[in-house]
Amino acid sequence: MASKQMVHMNRGQGETSYARNSILQNAEQNRMRPLIEDAIADLVCSRSMVIADLGCSSGPNALALASIAVDAFRRRCLALRRPPPPAELCVLLNDLPDNDFATVVKSLVEFRRNNGDEPVLLTGVVPGSFYGRLFAAESLHLVCSSNSLHWLSEAPEDLKMNGIPAYDVDANVRRERRAVVVGAYARQFRKDFMAFLKMRAVELVPGGRMVLSLAGRRSVDLASELTHAWESTAMTLSDMVTMGVIDKEKFETFYMPIYGPSDEEIRQIIQEEGSFLIREMQVPELTSGAYSALITSARVASMLRAAFEPIIVQHFGPTGCDGEEGIMDEFVRTAERRWSLEGSLQDELAQNPRGVLLVSLEKKPS
Amino acid sequence: MASKQMVHMNRGQGETSYARNSILQNAEQNRMRPLIEDAIADLVCSRSMVIADLGCSSGPNALALASIAVDAFRRRCLALRRPPPPAELCVLLNDLPDNDFATVVKSLVEFRRNNGDEPVLLTGVVPGSFYGRLFAAESLHLVCSSNSLHWLSEAPEDLKMNGIPAYDVDANVRRERRAVVVGAYARQFRKDFMAFLKMRAVELVPGGRMVLSLAGRRSVDLASELTHAWESTAMTLSDMVTMGVIDKEKFETFYMPIYGPSDEEIRQIIQEEGSFLIREMQVPELTSGAYSALITSARVASMLRAAFEPIIVQHFGPTGCDGEEGIMDEFVRTAERRWSLEGSLQDELAQNPRGVLLVSLEKKPS
Repeated sequence: MASKQMVHMNRGQGETSYARNSILQNAEQNRMRPLIEDAIADLVCSRSMVIADLGCSSGPNALALASIAVDAFRRRCLALRRPPPPAELCVLLNDLPDNDFATVVKSLVEFRRNNGDEPVLLTGVVPGSFYGRLFAAESLHLVCSSNSLHWLSEAPEDLKMNGIPAYDVDANVRRERRAVVVGAYARQFRKDFMAFLKMRAVELVPGGRMVLSLAGRRSVDLASELTHAWESTAMTLSDMVTMGVIDKEKFETFYMPIYGPSDEEIRQIIQEEGSFLIREMQVPELTSGAYSALITSARVASMLRAAFEPIIVQHFGPTGCDGEEGIMDEFVRTAERRWSLEGSLQDELAQNPRGVLLVSLEKKPS
Repeated sequence: MASKQMVHMNRGQGETSYARNSILQNAEQNRMRPLIEDAIADLVCSRSMVIADLGCSSGPNALALASIAVDAFRRRCLALRRPPPPAELCVLLNDLPDNDFATVVKSLVEFRRNNGDEPVLLTGVVPGSFYGRLFAAESLHLVCSSNSLHWLSEAPEDLKMNGIPAYDVDANVRRERRAVVVGAYARQFRKDFMAFLKMRAVELVPGGRMVLSLAGRRSVDLASELTHAWESTAMTLSDMVTMGVIDKEKFETFYMPIYGPSDEEIRQIIQEEGSFLIREMQVPELTSGAYSALITSARVASMLRAAFEPIIVQHFGPTGCDGEEGIMDEFVRTAERRWSLEGSLQDELAQNPRGVLLVSLEKKPS
């Protein structure tokens, strides 16, 4: 286990924390609101409901989906105007054990305090990988997850075993190997997402719902299979190799455990697994409208740092080759420099759009 | 909420941590083993069971009751020799939000890793006060709690409002007011324990079980109603007032939110509340046998520090009157000095035995 990659967001509340650099992820959570509201409207049949947010992270986003669900549940209860006792909603938050749960627990206290008398709000934290079992059988009514399911359980074993770098510094080699690299990542995603569906099929009640949002793309688009965040981080680290800040050999054994599937891929896996009906699938255009106003070089660089610092520092160490400069400060500077020299961030995103898949599923009756 | 007393054990793994100073509490947990085993043997009717430990604390004791329950559940499943799929056990750990949950989450990872394939082990953390609702209605099969229910939700309002110190430095005044002080604490305990029973009655399935262990005493004994730990801490702080290390005025507004009921008191509250049958009640003699070998001045002083440092430092500040010496180092020295000057710890315990109540309850059919 010690060799496992440390998948957790930057802790705490400081300047480089995920708590303060996750506004883009929050925008994506808000897109899930109508799907969550629909699911809850369909579901309310009893007085009590248990919902789980898988990959809750920490900071303000940790309770964003829970808040949406509580609002929707409360409105629905009011509309039904039922006599006392009050309805009950149990919210369970999950993430990997290295997540900043001390902060999550503090947010939960606040969350319960701000809740009125109805519904009775019960909360808990369930640490562990969502690719394994987490909850009691048939104990959940609604599962939500945002910005998490593109994280794989591990980087593809095939590539690591065969010494094939995920991103070759040499552009020609990189192009030649692209299909092999993407294929290995796609297979790992299929395996992981299949396991995810199987586990949740056990844990959801019949008719239970899932609303998921993850990095992904339209199958017809040019977007990178490995997500914009992956490509952008790899390009930045590759620049740092060229500049001599990090070792080439070290870079060639660095694998980000991330994959952004297409809508077609995910549809096939869901159908093959067989426990769920697809109620809705959306691939919203993220680089347009209000969303694009949020995208600035500084913001995207800080966001990449907040999400990937633990995994990068675990592999490369906290300092670069010269042993003095903090590797993550250099990472942010290099990313911003790249966007100012080699074409803007907007151009990069136009070529390789930051995409999202939104999926609403229903567990088939058993 | 900011004025609420900080009820949590000393964090972390260091020399003064609860993790390293809770061997006495662990001895008490082991006394619960036969009661937990009996409850589980009675309960196993389905493949899956949800158990909760209320007031789990942190350190090795946090998972002690859970381990006992897992062992008992596994043995029972083996005895029943049922065909696959494997049985499932869900273990939920509760404590107040200031508890060291970061450490608890790490222990849970280890706990799940050390578990075999059967039963499927699911774990979670539920922060909050057990005097309020914590879990979904009829979602629990077994509730355990050790060394926690003598902690009140707050010190008695009557005493605070009327400026009556819990422990007067003047021995005569103290004797005169003893009945008033004890009465106020007893009323607070009654109110809190009644609330505890009501909440758990909602959360347990019909026939669900509770195995509880808390500081207490035989109604016929001479033991202090406020527990040995309370008295011993108050005597030590009182000595520190005499020595000029802490302010008398400050000491007179310090209330430990702890009460140790008698077996008769607790029996009456359970019967009055009405949701539970008493399956068994024990008041073991703790100052005899193997237990007494664990009791040394240094160990008891460190144990008092590990349990009460947060609440003492919150009230008195980290340093004494002279502003230099750490108040808790002085506390430990003063306690040890008292036991060497004014009669041994063994004499003190003979006069005021450290008592424990063990109760096994069954929720009546609804």
